[in-house]
Amino acid sequence: MAEEASDENTVFIGNKPVMNYVLAVITQVNEGGGEVVLKARGRAISRAVDVAEIVRNRFLQDLDIQSIETGTVELEGERGTSNVSTMAISLGKEG
Amino acid sequence: MAEEASDENTVFIGNKPVMNYVLAVITQVNEGGGEVVLKARGRAISRAVDVAEIVRNRFLQDLDIQSIETGTVELEGERGTSNVSTMAISLGKEG
Repeated sequence: MAEEASDENTVFIGNKPVMNYVLAVITQVNEGGGEVVLKARGRAISRAVDVAEIVRNRFLQDLDIQSIETGTVELEGERGTSNVSTMAISLGKEG
Repeated sequence: MAEEASDENTVFIGNKPVMNYVLAVITQVNEGGGEVVLKARGRAISRAVDVAEIVRNRFLQDLDIQSIETGTVELEGERGTSNVSTMAISLGKEG
């Protein structure tokens, strides 16, 4: 798992408390030119949506969701391969 | 909770096994003119993404995600109000 291994402009959402990721997103927006991509897979997808909603509603009201993409990855586990859903939420400032 | 209380063309995703919802979506697509909206909130959001991915990858390859919308609702609980994220995934056939 590459949680928070920072691709440029990307915040990987894992199992930490939501507000950790909210802070990471706000920092990234301020330092990274106003854009950030939230990536999550499996159950963390719900948390990624929480993070996006909290950032937009409480902290950075000028941010909008530019796109949401979903996908599927195959993970190798002890009990064979399993499919896991992925989500990427792009946040940015309008116009 | 209004799980599966059927708005027209809408499948509400709750805590049942994923394949229950996959079947509901396939049925809705076949009966409802090729369009369906998956709605979920809180932790069920991850499951909604799973359902959309499984339907598209395994069963109805001509379906595409037309839009994904997120939102926040206030829920009244025993311990006061809390905010819960919501997601609506619209699936339809291209063109």
